[in-house]
Amino acid sequence: MRIVVLAGGIGGARFLRGLKKAAPDADITVIGNTGDDIHLFGLKVCPDLDTVMYTLGGGINEEQGWGRTDETFKVKEELAAYGVGPEWFGLGDRDFATHIVRTQMLGAGYPLSAVTQALCERWQPGVRLIPMSDDRVETHVAVTLDGEQKAVHFQEYWVRLRASVDAHAIVPVGAEQAKPAPGVLEAIAEADVVLFPPSNPVVSVGTILAVPGIREAIADAGVPVVGLSPIVGDAPVRGMADKVLAAVGVETTAAAVAEHYGSGLLDGWLVDSVDAGVVERVESAGIRCRAIPLMMTDVDAAAEMARAALALASEVRA
Amino acid sequence: MRIVVLAGGIGGARFLRGLKKAAPDADITVIGNTGDDIHLFGLKVCPDLDTVMYTLGGGINEEQGWGRTDETFKVKEELAAYGVGPEWFGLGDRDFATHIVRTQMLGAGYPLSAVTQALCERWQPGVRLIPMSDDRVETHVAVTLDGEQKAVHFQEYWVRLRASVDAHAIVPVGAEQAKPAPGVLEAIAEADVVLFPPSNPVVSVGTILAVPGIREAIADAGVPVVGLSPIVGDAPVRGMADKVLAAVGVETTAAAVAEHYGSGLLDGWLVDSVDAGVVERVESAGIRCRAIPLMMTDVDAAAEMARAALALASEVRA
Repeated sequence: MRIVVLAGGIGGARFLRGLKKAAPDADITVIGNTGDDIHLFGLKVCPDLDTVMYTLGGGINEEQGWGRTDETFKVKEELAAYGVGPEWFGLGDRDFATHIVRTQMLGAGYPLSAVTQALCERWQPGVRLIPMSDDRVETHVAVTLDGEQKAVHFQEYWVRLRASVDAHAIVPVGAEQAKPAPGVLEAIAEADVVLFPPSNPVVSVGTILAVPGIREAIADAGVPVVGLSPIVGDAPVRGMADKVLAAVGVETTAAAVAEHYGSGLLDGWLVDSVDAGVVERVESAGIRCRAIPLMMTDVDAAAEMARAALALASEVRA
Repeated sequence: MRIVVLAGGIGGARFLRGLKKAAPDADITVIGNTGDDIHLFGLKVCPDLDTVMYTLGGGINEEQGWGRTDETFKVKEELAAYGVGPEWFGLGDRDFATHIVRTQMLGAGYPLSAVTQALCERWQPGVRLIPMSDDRVETHVAVTLDGEQKAVHFQEYWVRLRASVDAHAIVPVGAEQAKPAPGVLEAIAEADVVLFPPSNPVVSVGTILAVPGIREAIADAGVPVVGLSPIVGDAPVRGMADKVLAAVGVETTAAAVAEHYGSGLLDGWLVDSVDAGVVERVESAGIRCRAIPLMMTDVDAAAEMARAALALASEVRA
């Protein structure tokens, strides 16, 4: 079975770990969000790709869900001693090596997809990880700060400001001109099922879908497309998705997110058991819906969610 | 008193620490060798400048004489895990931060001299540290390896090969086209004395003198030029200077090094007490010479050497 997964960071990575356990023989291609990539200290940092790579490769800091395990912060401390920031972005020493290798390879002319493949040769994530695009796409968030309208990088909004101010708009800068990375459209065309993990529907899955050609390829693939709600009981399971959902005019409910994806794209939707009441509403929008426990408390729980997603896909297919 | 010092790495840095103690009110300008600079992992590394900066700024690893104190090597370990080398060059985590800041500033368009000044704002070395040139000069060493003639970067010769093979030639690539960095010629013109610390006469002081204009400025300054022998008892005090001296046809003796600089450049020369026998030979070459203890066992010993160098300068002047 060939599975394509559109993944953001922590939610996507943890779901993928469950999926690998649920479908150990599947051929899994992960299309990773690069809209939250950022240049820091002259280095190219790809938080979502790295979170997937570290999580599946056994190098993740389990507790925080991002960054490396057994991490130290000497480089960052020293940069701060030089007065070089930002200090709000937590790059550890082990993590720095990844960004140094990536930056050096990009500088030598390799596209990000080839660089990601090279990094994965070390981590052996057990999936094929492809960035959504080799072109630069950078998610910016329009906010009002100190009475002034301005656009900040997504990481600045998310990490520095902790989404404490309203987002007026979310703009994936460069997306319109971006091309899907080599292998992305081919993987979708050959997929037996496409999954949207419980990742952020706006700044993770939404950004991937904003690359021209990807949404169309998924809609046209003629295979089940099944998603899992990142909203449980009208609140994001993790992160501050309510802020970015509000920016695109979507209420923070499991049903509203399904409708946001729409029946033209989505065939099946899993909501949490606490949201069983919305199943009827989602199905009336033309999307098959089931309610199951959606908290990824451990790998087994994530595997159970993956099994339910694949079962719903089979149901849709039949 | 305005003192100009041409400095390489460890020997230069330790001498400078002594000089600061011996002449606390002096205005010291250090012209640093950049011929052993190297690009590693996409980062610009300036070993000699950093050794001076760290030593005078209190950040040096005292035992080894280079690199940072309280250092860890996580980044390097991780780079090796990615298969990215070279592994023979020991960049620590704290040290990495310096190279990251430098590379980022160079990438932003600042010349190396401005970058060095910015880095020194943190370290407050108590001297004005200027790279010999803002242009790229890279010392290459011609060697025979596995029966083949080839040129290797100085660091590869020095650190990887540990000077275990003969050097046929030492070539400061780019030196002929290089211009002295802003402030270098001005500092020499305004100096009351110019000192050559017990640094390597070929690949440290020699490389600085190879930048067109610097040797001439020193010779024409009309002030005492006094050097200290890095050779004691016919052997280098530190490092493998004998190998690079042989490459330029100079024997490994305190007298031969003085003659290599020549009386057209050098007015005074300090040799170690064990080499007192060569004083007459050096003086007969037109260079005033004194024998004193030249082992920099601690800061006081280095300060004593600096006092002797300044005393010899006064003697020459008078």
